[in-house]
This record gives sequence, structure tokens and C-alpha cells, in this order.
Amino acid sequence: MHFVKMEGCGNDYIYVDQEKEQIVNPQTLARKISDRHFGVGADGMILICPSDMADCRMEMYNADGSRGKMCGNGVRCVAKYLYDYKKIRKEEIAVETDSGIHTVRILEDSGKATVAMGTPVIEEEPYVISMEGQKTEMMIVSMGNPHAVIFMEPEEGSWKTWNMKKAEAVSTHSDFPDGINVELVQVYSETGMKIRVWERGSKETLSCGSGACAAAAAAIRSGRTKQKVNIEMPGGMMEVEWDSDGQMYLTGGCRFVCEGEYPGSVG
Amino acid sequence: MHFVKMEGCGNDYIYVDQEKEQIVNPQTLARKISDRHFGVGADGMILICPSDMADCRMEMYNADGSRGKMCGNGVRCVAKYLYDYKKIRKEEIAVETDSGIHTVRILEDSGKATVAMGTPVIEEEPYVISMEGQKTEMMIVSMGNPHAVIFMEPEEGSWKTWNMKKAEAVSTHSDFPDGINVELVQVYSETGMKIRVWERGSKETLSCGSGACAAAAAAIRSGRTKQKVNIEMPGGMMEVEWDSDGQMYLTGGCRFVCEGEYPGSVG
Repeated sequence: MHFVKMEGCGNDYIYVDQEKEQIVNPQTLARKISDRHFGVGADGMILICPSDMADCRMEMYNADGSRGKMCGNGVRCVAKYLYDYKKIRKEEIAVETDSGIHTVRILEDSGKATVAMGTPVIEEEPYVISMEGQKTEMMIVSMGNPHAVIFMEPEEGSWKTWNMKKAEAVSTHSDFPDGINVELVQVYSETGMKIRVWERGSKETLSCGSGACAAAAAAIRSGRTKQKVNIEMPGGMMEVEWDSDGQMYLTGGCRFVCEGEYPGSVG
Repeated sequence: MHFVKMEGCGNDYIYVDQEKEQIVNPQTLARKISDRHFGVGADGMILICPSDMADCRMEMYNADGSRGKMCGNGVRCVAKYLYDYKKIRKEEIAVETDSGIHTVRILEDSGKATVAMGTPVIEEEPYVISMEGQKTEMMIVSMGNPHAVIFMEPEEGSWKTWNMKKAEAVSTHSDFPDGINVELVQVYSETGMKIRVWERGSKETLSCGSGACAAAAAAIRSGRTKQKVNIEMPGGMMEVEWDSDGQMYLTGGCRFVCEGEYPGSVG
């Protein structure tokens, strides 16, 4: 079975073209091929399928075989695949996902791409939870999925040594019975911030597109930054712009890693 | 650049044939290609090179780019590569490594292979170190590299929940200034044991060929098992036999995972 491995800010997926390969049991295949030691190794598998409504449809599977809805770093790689492998040279490539159609613009010079991530919904009031006698304040933002954005104080040290147990404790707090994604954020200028993300179900990840958008939305709404902000995450740099139309635009890398043949069962 | 990914009991390496590809800077390439998110992803890279003394020479690099000497799981995969890709159909395939020539026998029916790992050197007296007021007894075994073998008591619980901090503390103890590989061992019958390995420099690994041999040597010498023993490790099953010629023979899987093209610089 032919596959391509690509990564966007460190989110790496195995991409399989449904026009070339017929995958009968994608859950099993995703689990096997994503295994870092016994398979090719990836955060998951994304099938690129035909679509009646867009240039293609992405069908996303996590490394444990469960279905994923959308991934801001993955959808850019899908568009890049269409651009490079299928020679689709439209100004905007439309990708159907389980959470609607997202349009992607390929920035050929930089090797990056920009994806429209939708409009954030921000809760008016800051939310406060008490843990071990300490109060933690956060902003709750929905990007389709729920996020808790916590602005860190300088006395909490360098982002490289932040205590991620705080993020985990919020993510699994009883106030959020379905879990919540948590962003720890340090704003260092009107146009720049560093963030680390704890994804519900996945622990800490190298980067998270919707998390970057949620953190930017909270920083912009609370007057901490301008409408366009550079975001440094462990997996690399991203840029988020909150446009006057309400839409968040996420720009970041989408890089080809390797391609190959995987002999595992596809049926 | 053409590559093959193979794994032996969960030790996965990228194999590159030096007759096909000229690698000028293997340290850099090993670091890039081994990265689990930004590269293909592996424990390291092994170059398969011509040899004057054997059927080939393996040149091994760890994921951080440093040189490795030998890997019991890797050397079986090298022989399997010669068998499958180069059609070398000798009864014993000889592989030159930085720690001498090892012969490998391919067991075609089972997909496994047996490698001669050399003769263990076992210290006569058990070694005892004190940590936090507690004494820990171990057997010191050299398989070319140093190992501390600790037999666990039933009251220390299931091997899946063993406290690996004990292994780490021994591995980095001041009595071993160069570090030592540590095997925690539970013998469950005269022919079977479970082990977990803490490799100096690598933390816990899914399996370790020399660790399996060291643990078997200690168990056999101390009368706990017979000369031939099945070893269960997190990455899979291995079998070790201490032959009457003094040689340890290690049998285990060596499986093709995928092959592909990696566009990264090879020079």
C-alpha cells in the first residue's frame, strides 16, 4: 500500500490516497501503521477521499484507531498533498472534514499554508477553578472543540520548565466531564506568544492548530495582543490572524517527510 | 534515498544499503531520519556496508547521531535484509560489527533468526548497593557491554507495574561511573522469565538483545533456569540458549515494516 508521511509543526500523519488504495478496515490499519516501533509511526492516519462538495474529503483516524474530526495541522498537509501530488493548482483548496469544509491557501515560497479555522466562541466571564487550595483563572474558548486558555505569570518560570501537571489537572477536572484541551500561554509582546498544549485524550502534544487559535482568540479579546500573532509551540512556529470577518486564519508548515510502501493488510 | 524500516522485538531501525546510497554525513542523517515526528522515526539508523571479512558490515547510529557498537536485535535484521533483498542464501550469514563478527541463522519458517552473541563474563560474587537505606543485590554480567541483573521478588508486584525508578537509580549509581544497563527479572519457571530493561543512555526500551542474554546468563549460572529459556519483554518474545561451547544464542523476530524514499540530504 502506498503511503506518504507529512508533518505540520510536528503533527505527523500517514496520508493514504483512497483513489489509489482501497482501505476496508481503516481503524485497524490506523492502529498498526501509527505504532512508532512496529509500524511506520505517526500521530494517526488520514485518508484522502473524493468529495462531492469540495476538492477532497479527509477522513482522520487517531493512533488508537478512533475517529478524529479535524486537525488544523493535518488539513494543511492534505491540501499540500493535493497541490503536489494531484497538481490541483487552485488559489484555495477546499477540504471537507467531519466538522465542515475548510479552505486552504498554499504559500509556495515559504512551504507553508494558511487554513481558515472558523470563528471562535469565547465565554464572557473568566472561569475559575480551585485545585489544592489554589485558584486558577482561565478563558473558555470553543473552536468547535473546547479549550481552556491559561495565561502564565513570569514567576511561573520558563515555558520549557512549566509544570504541565497543572494543565493535566485542568484537563481532567470534574467541572469538565468530557475533558477539555488546555493551553498554557506566555504573551511576550503584542505580536508574540509561546504556548504549550495538553490535549484531552492525547496528553501533551508538539502543537495543536485549534489550540493556537483558541489561545490567540483569548489573547486578542483580552487586549493582550494585536489581531495577528506569532505563536511558538514545541513543534514549531505558527501564525494566527483574526480577520475582520470573524474568521481565524492559521498559517504554518506542512512538510513532506517520506513516502513508501507498507505491506500490511489493507482489507 | 531508499530506506527500509525493520524491527526486531520492537527495536526499530532505518536500514540503508551503502551499495545503493552514498551517505556522506551519517551522524546528521541518523538524527534527522530517526526523529519520530519530523523524520521517518526509529531507534536509530544502520548502514549496510561491504566487508572484506564477512558477508557485510553494519555501521550503527543511535537516534541522537552517536555511534552504536552492536545491537542483538539489529544484527538479525541486517542478516534478514541480506537474505531477502540480496538473496544471500547461506546457512549462516556473517555480519561484521564494531564488536566483532556475529553469525546469524535465518529461520525461514518462523520469520525469526538466531544470532551468536558471544560468551558472557559473570562476576563471581553478587554485588550489593545501598540506596535510601535499602540494599539491592544484583549480578554483574558483561556481554561486551556491562549489565546489572536484579531478580525481583513476587511481592514487588506484576512486571507491568514495577517501579522502573529502581532500575534508573542503579543505572546511574556512583558505583558505575560509566553507567550500566539494568535488567529487572522475574523467573516464573525453569524455562521462562519476564524482564524489563533500562539501557544506559536510552532509558527504558521495548527490548534489548544483550540484556536478554545477560539476564539469562545470570539466571542459568545461579541455577534458577535451564540452559534454554524463553524471555518475555515488552517488545515481544525472545529465546536464549547458552550452548555447551559457552556461546549465547539469541533467537527472535526480525520483521520488515516498510520501505520508502526519504528526500533528506544524504551528503
